[in-house]
Amino acid sequence: MAHILDQIDTHKDLMALDDADLKALADEVRSYIIECVAENGGHLASNLGTVELTVALLAELDPEVDRIVWDVGHQSYAMKILTGRRLAMKRLRQEGGPSGFPNIKESKSDCFGTGHSSTSISAALGLAVSRRLKGAGNAVVAVIGDGAMTGGMAYEAMNNAGALKEDLIVILNDNEQAIARNVGSISEMLERIRFSPARRKIENGFKQILSGIPIVGEKIRQAGHVVKRSLKGLLLPKMLFEDLGFTYIGPLDGHNIKMMRNAIRDARKLGGPVIIHAVTKKGKGYAPAEADPDSYHGTGPFDPATGIKVNNNKDGFTDVFSKKLVELAESDPRIVAITAAMPAGTGLSSFARRFPGRYFDVGIAEQHAVTFAAGLAAGGLVPVVALYSTFLQRAYDQMLHDVALQGLHVVLAIDRAGIVGEDGATHQGTYDMSMALSAPGFTVLAPMDGTELEMMLGWAAEEAAGPVMIRYPKGHSNDSARTGPAAPFMPGRAEVLKSGSDVALICEGPSTSEAMKATSMLEDEGISATVINIRSLKPIDEQVVRSALKGHRLIFTVEEGVARGGLYSSVMLLCEGQAGSVIPLSIPESPIKHGKRPAVISRLGLDAEGIAKAVMAAAAKEGR
Amino acid sequence: MAHILDQIDTHKDLMALDDADLKALADEVRSYIIECVAENGGHLASNLGTVELTVALLAELDPEVDRIVWDVGHQSYAMKILTGRRLAMKRLRQEGGPSGFPNIKESKSDCFGTGHSSTSISAALGLAVSRRLKGAGNAVVAVIGDGAMTGGMAYEAMNNAGALKEDLIVILNDNEQAIARNVGSISEMLERIRFSPARRKIENGFKQILSGIPIVGEKIRQAGHVVKRSLKGLLLPKMLFEDLGFTYIGPLDGHNIKMMRNAIRDARKLGGPVIIHAVTKKGKGYAPAEADPDSYHGTGPFDPATGIKVNNNKDGFTDVFSKKLVELAESDPRIVAITAAMPAGTGLSSFARRFPGRYFDVGIAEQHAVTFAAGLAAGGLVPVVALYSTFLQRAYDQMLHDVALQGLHVVLAIDRAGIVGEDGATHQGTYDMSMALSAPGFTVLAPMDGTELEMMLGWAAEEAAGPVMIRYPKGHSNDSARTGPAAPFMPGRAEVLKSGSDVALICEGPSTSEAMKATSMLEDEGISATVINIRSLKPIDEQVVRSALKGHRLIFTVEEGVARGGLYSSVMLLCEGQAGSVIPLSIPESPIKHGKRPAVISRLGLDAEGIAKAVMAAAAKEGR
Repeated sequence: MAHILDQIDTHKDLMALDDADLKALADEVRSYIIECVAENGGHLASNLGTVELTVALLAELDPEVDRIVWDVGHQSYAMKILTGRRLAMKRLRQEGGPSGFPNIKESKSDCFGTGHSSTSISAALGLAVSRRLKGAGNAVVAVIGDGAMTGGMAYEAMNNAGALKEDLIVILNDNEQAIARNVGSISEMLERIRFSPARRKIENGFKQILSGIPIVGEKIRQAGHVVKRSLKGLLLPKMLFEDLGFTYIGPLDGHNIKMMRNAIRDARKLGGPVIIHAVTKKGKGYAPAEADPDSYHGTGPFDPATGIKVNNNKDGFTDVFSKKLVELAESDPRIVAITAAMPAGTGLSSFARRFPGRYFDVGIAEQHAVTFAAGLAAGGLVPVVALYSTFLQRAYDQMLHDVALQGLHVVLAIDRAGIVGEDGATHQGTYDMSMALSAPGFTVLAPMDGTELEMMLGWAAEEAAGPVMIRYPKGHSNDSARTGPAAPFMPGRAEVLKSGSDVALICEGPSTSEAMKATSMLEDEGISATVINIRSLKPIDEQVVRSALKGHRLIFTVEEGVARGGLYSSVMLLCEGQAGSVIPLSIPESPIKHGKRPAVISRLGLDAEGIAKAVMAAAAKEGR
Repeated sequence: MAHILDQIDTHKDLMALDDADLKALADEVRSYIIECVAENGGHLASNLGTVELTVALLAELDPEVDRIVWDVGHQSYAMKILTGRRLAMKRLRQEGGPSGFPNIKESKSDCFGTGHSSTSISAALGLAVSRRLKGAGNAVVAVIGDGAMTGGMAYEAMNNAGALKEDLIVILNDNEQAIARNVGSISEMLERIRFSPARRKIENGFKQILSGIPIVGEKIRQAGHVVKRSLKGLLLPKMLFEDLGFTYIGPLDGHNIKMMRNAIRDARKLGGPVIIHAVTKKGKGYAPAEADPDSYHGTGPFDPATGIKVNNNKDGFTDVFSKKLVELAESDPRIVAITAAMPAGTGLSSFARRFPGRYFDVGIAEQHAVTFAAGLAAGGLVPVVALYSTFLQRAYDQMLHDVALQGLHVVLAIDRAGIVGEDGATHQGTYDMSMALSAPGFTVLAPMDGTELEMMLGWAAEEAAGPVMIRYPKGHSNDSARTGPAAPFMPGRAEVLKSGSDVALICEGPSTSEAMKATSMLEDEGISATVINIRSLKPIDEQVVRSALKGHRLIFTVEEGVARGGLYSSVMLLCEGQAGSVIPLSIPESPIKHGKRPAVISRLGLDAEGIAKAVMAAAAKEGR
């Protein structure tokens, strides 16, 4: 039924379309996005919200010459579909298919890769300055959501952009709802203002000014296009952005292609830094996503007719963390929990419902999250900060400077550690171990299954005195290859799951189960393996590790992270020349492409088969 | 002459003083700060600006019960002097003396350690929440400068604080001049507004509102205390902070103790988040510092009578970098330079004068600095970002996500790498190597002297294709122990400075010179040493390293950074079980206290003597 979309191979084909065609095209793109995401999983609600905006951008600009930077990048599917990747999108986020985010290596139209939040204005400002110094005349556009605006980096960039005065268009994609409900003052302020008589006076003053804006204000007013959203659009963003040196256009209906095209054209005419405030609806046009945009922000495959999700696993590490934290908090009033705008993803939603006064969603603000936690700990509470591994990178300095140097009892619950799967290179949890292991005084723990996570979380909250990081991956928490009951957890103590004589496998987290599975393949080859579940990466079990180093000719470290600075480096620090050969099996120091989590783990040789192969190859080389 | 100060052992002694005494005390504290900094070096201008503010805080609050968080912490000398550390301040920043920053281990009055910028509101908010949950009634105050307000983290915290509505006092210490002149839109905006007729109308509207503020506005107005600073104080901060959910008091004269005390009292009465806008003068009361606050921001020892500095070394790595970059930029218009508010400290001042259109001071905003650079590189320019090692920690995610994953040609010029000396634990440059070495595609270089820095910078700007980090310390660039001319630089190539037969010393940066000096001591003991100047940490010279590993019984890595993830780990990755014993000489993973740079290096065993001792001890253990 996609009569128009089928004709669109690249953005150039949009030139032949009139207003009605473009509108129809947008509807077809929307259906196609639903189809692709239903099949492969991905970001749905955000992409449905930016279809018309994308069509407008591509109708006005040439993405191979002009520069369009999508903040966070999880709303760039329409752009991909319309810039040469329509058919490829059938394999969205799968091995060999397009990334779920803009990627400079994927297309000329993706001028800057994104994945983490709040980077777009910085990158676009760099592109704008380079245009000036090269004497070029292309447009530069950043598209940023209201959620991403809570990240401090966006504010740093706005402050700088306002001062530099380069021609730069920032489109604020305001869907009134970031990943989680926005809990900052900006949103609360609206309520206050609506009911403040003093403010009403100001509002009247501003109405005069609005009609005084030379080009845009009056045009919008005449066209009757002003979206009625009380003061949020009319007064506040205007003040805020103009204070920062931007010309403000809006608020506009972000689903009105013609209006968005006019605004883009006006912004180019105006010159200097211009902000276009576009109001959009997350999940637009797909009833299940409109009704519950949070749940369809990032989703696995689903039935497009009903919206019902194919898999809704409840056995992940996240779920174990979620339940255990509530249980601990029931009996310990010192426990408080912090998320950076991801209550559902990190499993804190149930804590939030049970203990609203002890739960803090700080916005997309990992830096603040960690130092806020340091303050809570300095005040005698036990803060648990739940973050994805990849986003912890944003808070490295805060982790070192505010938590570690002061030895404060902050618990970092690091989810999505290791391979994340379909989200790909920008989201892999590669560095959390290397970050925490060299930080002063951190205890660093990695559970191989849900039972261990429960024990570790209990210890971290109730018995630890200093900073603790617990890392766990996206995977299942219950497919452990453990054969007996888990030994009680103690920091600094490893668990020897299996004793062998030829090789030792020193493992971290669920890699331990893969190693256990590998041992049967090795036995078939006559190789007897010791498997150590390291559990506590720091302090590390020196006795067990040293004895493994001495007692085997071949030693392997197996970890979902980089070897340099990770488990491998920690083991090597105990070698002191007494070692046999130690070989790291780890995540390589290069961008790790997307694919299903088990497929990526297999691609990297970190599954049972890969581990067995590596051991056999090394054993063969040793000439045993 | 310090009649009052001599009587003040702790803050409790302030209770006996009347207004006139407090004023006289402030003058005596000011003189004493000048005396201590003239002797030991330290932060001068910022501390002179906050004397009265400190006296007011200590007259109103009990710092052992109430919580006072000093942002950046380089303005806390008066607080230290008045809270039990008066005599100790004579040894300010020296081995065994007080830190130049608040430190929770130093005093009960230092409730939260600071050193890096823009953390105070986050920490204070944590302390305020913990007070509520514990049912306590103490005050919580954050004191933050206008410069620190350009850091995105402060904005993240304000946004959260405005929403949480805890009782929290933020004192904006507005000295109209951060470390460097503030180049953001906030300051430029003032000019615009002054000349905008449309804004004048709004201003009139706001004057009405200001007098309508119930308690404070009128009181201040009656007292005639409103500082005349056009709109900066009257209109803008008020709007900005009230938008973020704060009650605004100000602007007030931050040097008027009585006014500040009243404001603090009012803020406590008001409850909720309150901002007190205090206007102060950097360098207040000391003519040389008032005239040139930048130069007296951080200073070495000086003659208090004249302000003339004792040492003004011009042979540091910073100076070499400064000159070479200008030279390169003369012939290559692609080169642009970025600083995060530290043009003087990083040596970019001369570049700024020579190429104002290619120079960018982005404010205290390392995150934005690095992603902005990534945008510049994506646009075809060659950005050189000059940062201190410790502040690069703020941009770890940007370095990984925006620069490394995309393989962009950004040059990170990392100054103050390794031991920084008197600034101590919060400022040591410990982690830059471990950050960059495991990042995809980074070339990581460390010059042992100025000649090498010149060669490396030339290569990085002109020949490199991807991301490059060059790290160099605070020390002299010309006391190299090299005996001949430097070999030409090539990435991936080490330089063997000396060939020996017993031990190999694989060294990074100026540690190489220390190792060279150690060899003569070793020769006296009959130990023959190879010394390798690694130069290129990544790619590393595999041939030279492997041959060192094979050809010596004892191998040492020597580096100014943590071993885990640093040079040591890089060397170990080449071992594959063929190694002799490799022993890391490095910065330990614990807070490294202040002291003079050579003294700290010696304390850590990283000077020639320490290296020689470590080698002899290991050799003895080996039983040779």
